[in-house]
Amino acid sequence: MASGWFYLSCLLLGSLGSMCILFTIYWMQYWRGGFAWNGSIYMFNWHPVLMVAGMVVFYGGASLVYRLPQSWLGPRLPWKLLHAALHLMAFILTVVGLVAVFTFHNHGRIANLYSLHSWLGITAVFLFACQWCLGFAVFLLPWASVWLRSLLKPIHVFFGAAILSLSIASVISGINEKLFFSLKNTTRPYNSLPSEAVFANSTGMLVVAFGLLVLYILLASSWKRPEPGVLTDRQLLLQLRPGSQPFPVTYVPVTGRQPYESW
Amino acid sequence: MASGWFYLSCLLLGSLGSMCILFTIYWMQYWRGGFAWNGSIYMFNWHPVLMVAGMVVFYGGASLVYRLPQSWLGPRLPWKLLHAALHLMAFILTVVGLVAVFTFHNHGRIANLYSLHSWLGITAVFLFACQWCLGFAVFLLPWASVWLRSLLKPIHVFFGAAILSLSIASVISGINEKLFFSLKNTTRPYNSLPSEAVFANSTGMLVVAFGLLVLYILLASSWKRPEPGVLTDRQLLLQLRPGSQPFPVTYVPVTGRQPYESW
Repeated sequence: MASGWFYLSCLLLGSLGSMCILFTIYWMQYWRGGFAWNGSIYMFNWHPVLMVAGMVVFYGGASLVYRLPQSWLGPRLPWKLLHAALHLMAFILTVVGLVAVFTFHNHGRIANLYSLHSWLGITAVFLFACQWCLGFAVFLLPWASVWLRSLLKPIHVFFGAAILSLSIASVISGINEKLFFSLKNTTRPYNSLPSEAVFANSTGMLVVAFGLLVLYILLASSWKRPEPGVLTDRQLLLQLRPGSQPFPVTYVPVTGRQPYESW
Repeated sequence: MASGWFYLSCLLLGSLGSMCILFTIYWMQYWRGGFAWNGSIYMFNWHPVLMVAGMVVFYGGASLVYRLPQSWLGPRLPWKLLHAALHLMAFILTVVGLVAVFTFHNHGRIANLYSLHSWLGITAVFLFACQWCLGFAVFLLPWASVWLRSLLKPIHVFFGAAILSLSIASVISGINEKLFFSLKNTTRPYNSLPSEAVFANSTGMLVVAFGLLVLYILLASSWKRPEPGVLTDRQLLLQLRPGSQPFPVTYVPVTGRQPYESW
């Protein structure tokens, strides 16, 4: 039953994520004239699409790799590689999205990084870069001790969720700002709620719904890889499947717990 | 040590929360002409102050009542009453903040609820109202069974954190929007980063820092009231203090866990 809910949530997540990207593309294509890579306003149009795709949808999906029950059994390295590779893909999309907006600004002699949207967005991207490098150095390269990994894991998990929250706040303020700019001197301004405004506002609400669902799946304790020695009924079912390799179960007494060790 | 970190975090939280409110008051008083209650733009100025105070600072503080170690021992009812009363205070501030903006809009014949900021904000307030009523009916009134409370607790905790996240995204987009409006036709527009813009952007970043710290304290597993039968070293220290009343400890075997039961 728990497994059924998990896969249903993943299905909903996939649908919401696809809708977030497709809605942003449609908004830029249908109402804002489409895409180009020449320093014009059509180059800017890549910015919302790539930031929603990179910092929200791919980032959110990549965060949930360890929630797949398949990742709980067998060697961990392939899952770590997948987690790092998907986040790297999200980061590349993000950087291209930043190149699009900076090039547009520089081409049109528009100031960079003055709005609260840009301050928050660049903070989220900076933290994402630090998070990826620290994660790669500590959890993927073989030098770090178990003690160091245990110490940094809760911080890594907390900042993972925090960066997604910052990204969503940044996307919301970005859509809001773009609509005020675009619908300023039109016959139907933003405050008369033309169809573009309804569509883009709805896209923003979809991004919020996607983000909340990622955080729900990420933080739900029964969907986490169990700590060594704690065997949940769901894991037991996985172990009892034909062909699966059981892993050793030992009793670990519950004493003091570190912050986030159960995340 | 864990206790020391907790109280240090609370001290930081109190400082950040006070700064969020004081900075917003200073912004409105020094750059936007101060406050009034007459339908003018000075009435609008109550809106950012009351939303930051209600939906972020008071809401965040009220959410953390059960993280105080003192709430872990003895009867739960006084802490429940405190939790509900503080949230009610946060909700009243929020409603007055909404009255301020709606009255200003209606007085100046400005449309209501068209921007993404307002869509997200009103969603957060609506969810807050539902959350408070449901919490009051299920967790404070004596009719609900233990089974129903256990079922709804993880949902209550998840939506508590989700509403705070929505509020922060809403505040960020609100500050961004207000700066674009206020600094539109000035000698030093927003994109030239006048001192007002730097100050208000910094206020927004403080709100984000406050929100992330609340979520950290709320979700850190070692700072939660332990489940029955699980005795942490911190709780043991509390029980061993002179004059404290020990509560019964029974062994509860670990089987399947519900989502968020360890939140």
